[in-house]
Amino acid sequence: MSDLKITGVEVIDLRFPTSRDAIGSDAVNTSPDYSAAYCILETDQELKGYGLTFTLGRGTELCVEALRYLSKFVIGRSLSSITDNFAAFSRELTGDPQFRWLGPEKGVIHLATAALLNAVWDLYARKKDKPLWQLLADMEDEQILRAIDFRYITDALTPDEARAILRKNKAGMDLRLEYLRQRGYPAYTTSVGWMGFSDEKIAHLCDQALAEGWTHFKLKVGGDPADDMRRARLVREKIGSHNKLMFDANQMWDVEEAIKRTRELAVLHPWWMEEPTSPDDILGHARIRREVPQVRIATGEHCQNRVIFKQLMQAKAIDVCQIDSCRLAGVNENLAVMLMAAKFNIPVCPHAGGVGLCEYVQHLSVFDYLRVSATLENRVTEFVDHLHEHFVDPVHVENGHYLLSTQPGYSAEIYPETLRNYSYPNGKIWKT
Amino acid sequence: MSDLKITGVEVIDLRFPTSRDAIGSDAVNTSPDYSAAYCILETDQELKGYGLTFTLGRGTELCVEALRYLSKFVIGRSLSSITDNFAAFSRELTGDPQFRWLGPEKGVIHLATAALLNAVWDLYARKKDKPLWQLLADMEDEQILRAIDFRYITDALTPDEARAILRKNKAGMDLRLEYLRQRGYPAYTTSVGWMGFSDEKIAHLCDQALAEGWTHFKLKVGGDPADDMRRARLVREKIGSHNKLMFDANQMWDVEEAIKRTRELAVLHPWWMEEPTSPDDILGHARIRREVPQVRIATGEHCQNRVIFKQLMQAKAIDVCQIDSCRLAGVNENLAVMLMAAKFNIPVCPHAGGVGLCEYVQHLSVFDYLRVSATLENRVTEFVDHLHEHFVDPVHVENGHYLLSTQPGYSAEIYPETLRNYSYPNGKIWKT
Repeated sequence: MSDLKITGVEVIDLRFPTSRDAIGSDAVNTSPDYSAAYCILETDQELKGYGLTFTLGRGTELCVEALRYLSKFVIGRSLSSITDNFAAFSRELTGDPQFRWLGPEKGVIHLATAALLNAVWDLYARKKDKPLWQLLADMEDEQILRAIDFRYITDALTPDEARAILRKNKAGMDLRLEYLRQRGYPAYTTSVGWMGFSDEKIAHLCDQALAEGWTHFKLKVGGDPADDMRRARLVREKIGSHNKLMFDANQMWDVEEAIKRTRELAVLHPWWMEEPTSPDDILGHARIRREVPQVRIATGEHCQNRVIFKQLMQAKAIDVCQIDSCRLAGVNENLAVMLMAAKFNIPVCPHAGGVGLCEYVQHLSVFDYLRVSATLENRVTEFVDHLHEHFVDPVHVENGHYLLSTQPGYSAEIYPETLRNYSYPNGKIWKT
Repeated sequence: MSDLKITGVEVIDLRFPTSRDAIGSDAVNTSPDYSAAYCILETDQELKGYGLTFTLGRGTELCVEALRYLSKFVIGRSLSSITDNFAAFSRELTGDPQFRWLGPEKGVIHLATAALLNAVWDLYARKKDKPLWQLLADMEDEQILRAIDFRYITDALTPDEARAILRKNKAGMDLRLEYLRQRGYPAYTTSVGWMGFSDEKIAHLCDQALAEGWTHFKLKVGGDPADDMRRARLVREKIGSHNKLMFDANQMWDVEEAIKRTRELAVLHPWWMEEPTSPDDILGHARIRREVPQVRIATGEHCQNRVIFKQLMQAKAIDVCQIDSCRLAGVNENLAVMLMAAKFNIPVCPHAGGVGLCEYVQHLSVFDYLRVSATLENRVTEFVDHLHEHFVDPVHVENGHYLLSTQPGYSAEIYPETLRNYSYPNGKIWKT
């Protein structure tokens, strides 16, 4: 098969006015307009690659601008020159000697790096005519290892240890794949309990979700304690004790308050407490976990890079590792974190929702099951039912499971009409 | 005194082509163009406020754009409405419900926040007709506490504990001030040992620095081990065993390599090893410190916020706390970190150099001595001798000490001619 050459990158500031309906609202993120810095890799052939990073509205323009700068690293490059040593390419993006001062490997520049890396992976999968999960699942161990920048994590996971994990789990892959083909990958719903929703709306959405076959439900907390408790009891009563209830505080609390509030809410037997405090506070999470042992602690959607995840694992700070497909530097850095999680025996339950995150993480979870963790125990992937209609290859969820994606690529291609209508500030939606 | 109203904010992308002379080069930052996102607060009176955040060239435009957005939080506000509850204002900037997704409190948006907060502090000090250090030193305890956002650090430092530190150190402040008036605040020089300098140049610069009265010298390491050792021996021989030699690896190493390399270089009795690994790696620094107890460990110039510093202290990961006046969210967040350092009994030795960092940190160090740490033991503030000629009120260094600043403000005002000539991309310097 002939190689591809990347000839250009189109970058788009895409925003959906979701704040108008309180969709996505939580204790901290009170009025998000789900948005994306979106890019299209043009090539010397018909194939294109599509990638994005998720944002909340204002500031998308910063990611867009960063993405425009980073584009110089792909333009004129052959696809194979990137994918043959993907970690080196990733290091070029994160190691730019002037740009990295703005991070390193965090915030705006890292989000933009994710969009570009995700687009290259999409192009790569399309070129191989496989969904991304399958491209990854079919890779040789060494090829996977060459995609991972081990810098700063070798004290927790060496390439040899990563190789051993991949080798060990070759056995049984076919059976696991067959299981996924029949059942799909287990998911949970966050759509029932946004902060801005009334009790009536939450009750109605619980009924609806139960009827659809959901078994894991997440509720936003971190508001007034009495309100939190009332809403939590409502959901628990609706879903019964046999289903799982998770809480998400979205970083609202200081460490000691988090301990107190998590203990209070423990009476409702949550399956986990998510983001009880600052995403930067490794030792804080470790203390909360130590002092409220009856509740499993989750975090990750705001964890900036593999170095933070490494420490969360080393410090025994989390029970659930919530990778983010767009905050970590694309597929590459997510591979690193999944392999570390396998070594530390911590389940990966990806963060999703927003724009395109569900489309992305389904692939990562499937790969995690097939090649890395080799188990579904305590694993569920987040699902939020918004904005999928804008994707050419949207997720298919049935009976609380993500059905296996079958289209080539990483599923982030958005319809041209959506790109026109929702582009900011000149799209039709934003003009009216 | 009548209140001021902020009527507008001018934002400038300012870049100096320092990479042409290998100034500022180290193992990681190989070709920096010292730059700043610079802002001028316009008011309804004659006074203006000047603030900046330091960058390395590319990407300054991102901070500039973020700063333009954040400007909306000051325009139309009276100065007193900000300074009467400065922490609440700081929280407005860091808590913007859409913008904070890009951090929170890290990277581009946090750097921009620093520039704006620094400009408000400059305006405040000018309005009070005092240098910033004196404005701070003269503040009531409660006023200082109201400037600090304690969110996420109350498990390490409560407002009551901070108040107790400030109270305890009232005694002796006059004597300490008198000392500073006579001697100045102790400094060290980084100008002798940039990575890109030849051995001959380093030797010559050591001679020159010794003649100028310097007693603390920092050398960049993190290159080829033999080169590092040769350069380090050269400096040690030049400065003798009675002067202090510090090493700075600028994040080059993984944890285990850092341990090995720091042990090797320990034969030259360094006063500290700076940035041995990733600035995000709290537990990594703690391990390096544990395993190389003969060398003091320093970091901070790339530590994104008070939550990281908190953990570095809780984990006993550092011997030296290197605050950055522009990476932390302005004076406010630096106050938080200085007070935590006082509680944990860790000396603060600010990072400086670049553009305006020396001008800034002299004020913070003086305040730290007068009101917070009340000691000079193991304290030195970085000095780099570049670009001061562009400042209206540049630092004055004599005999290895920063002389006390006497002009009103926070010393970051840059000459209009410099702003014209070095503005990017249209200034004269960048056109030629």
